[in-house]
Amino acid sequence: MIGRLLLSVAMASTMLLGVLAPGSAGHESPDGARYTAERELRFPEGYREWIFLTSGVDMTYNAKADAGMSMFGNVFVNPSSYREFLKTGTWPEGTALVLEDRGAVHGGEKQASINKHGLSQTEETMGMEVHVKDASVPGGWGFYAFDTEKTAKMIPRAATCYSCHEQHAAVDTTFVQFYPTLLPVAKTKGTLSKGYLAEVAK
Amino acid sequence: MIGRLLLSVAMASTMLLGVLAPGSAGHESPDGARYTAERELRFPEGYREWIFLTSGVDMTYNAKADAGMSMFGNVFVNPSSYREFLKTGTWPEGTALVLEDRGAVHGGEKQASINKHGLSQTEETMGMEVHVKDASVPGGWGFYAFDTEKTAKMIPRAATCYSCHEQHAAVDTTFVQFYPTLLPVAKTKGTLSKGYLAEVAK
Repeated sequence: MIGRLLLSVAMASTMLLGVLAPGSAGHESPDGARYTAERELRFPEGYREWIFLTSGVDMTYNAKADAGMSMFGNVFVNPSSYREFLKTGTWPEGTALVLEDRGAVHGGEKQASINKHGLSQTEETMGMEVHVKDASVPGGWGFYAFDTEKTAKMIPRAATCYSCHEQHAAVDTTFVQFYPTLLPVAKTKGTLSKGYLAEVAK
Repeated sequence: MIGRLLLSVAMASTMLLGVLAPGSAGHESPDGARYTAERELRFPEGYREWIFLTSGVDMTYNAKADAGMSMFGNVFVNPSSYREFLKTGTWPEGTALVLEDRGAVHGGEKQASINKHGLSQTEETMGMEVHVKDASVPGGWGFYAFDTEKTAKMIPRAATCYSCHEQHAAVDTTFVQFYPTLLPVAKTKGTLSKGYLAEVAK
């Protein structure tokens, strides 16, 4: 399980992530970010009924990352923010993007049923990271991590997830380059970040 | 593209699929299956806003299937049928399950942005297969395949997709064993098929 959690951290870092620590938090959304009175983010119980954006496998920043097992990362966003993105090419206040780290089983293994090749998803989750648009915090976005918790404090700004998202993400610190139905919207609306456009131009 | 389509066929066969041919079709759903006056299935334009069930990579029945490239298969279901499954452990009439074959890019490739490992999804789709619950056809389910078409005739019953789904799928000819949030529902509701239970018991 420790190995899985470490892999979870490595993988999640591609899109979201960090380590739990105190922080502040901001504005709510009708179907996205919701906070406690102590300004902790509530776990988004219904996220599996939100809009699916993408699924990745074993994504990391490190070329040699290989923990000997595989994992999927499924990404969801609250529906009202998705609809706003389709109109504007960017996210409204209160947007919550959820990265679900999900177990993978190789074809041919007993748990793989009749699948003989590639990878399928299992019932096991290895954590959840949430990225929330929040004008009340520095940088305008907060990261949160959940395992079995029902609420989470914001990950502190010193975590590398913030600087990496700000430098490399395609739209407003979010990795829209990995969301295949939203990337063309951002192109059309002209909302791609300077950092991303510079990387693509290389 | 031919290679991709062949791979698409191999992969799709894990969950849905077959070859286009004439057939009949049945009852509609408020948000699932919709037909033309000629009883062809209409392409479900809004499926990316339906409920996400799972994503697989390079799944096939054949242990040695390797086309030198990878592909994701993303599965969605119409929301009202999903909610009914949560209550009953099985699907109502008019249910439409969509398998979207989606391009994959390896970490480290130019198109992979900052990802250095594993796989992410691309803007390219390689076809779409739809599995519809339809009491008016033999077996109670019809398969349909779409590329750029807006409507499709039902795949004929002789296609192996029908017999394979009937023999190996976990719930009512659908591969719920690959849908991690629905498999526990089917276990609780006691709706797992005899064929699947026999395979798991081996």
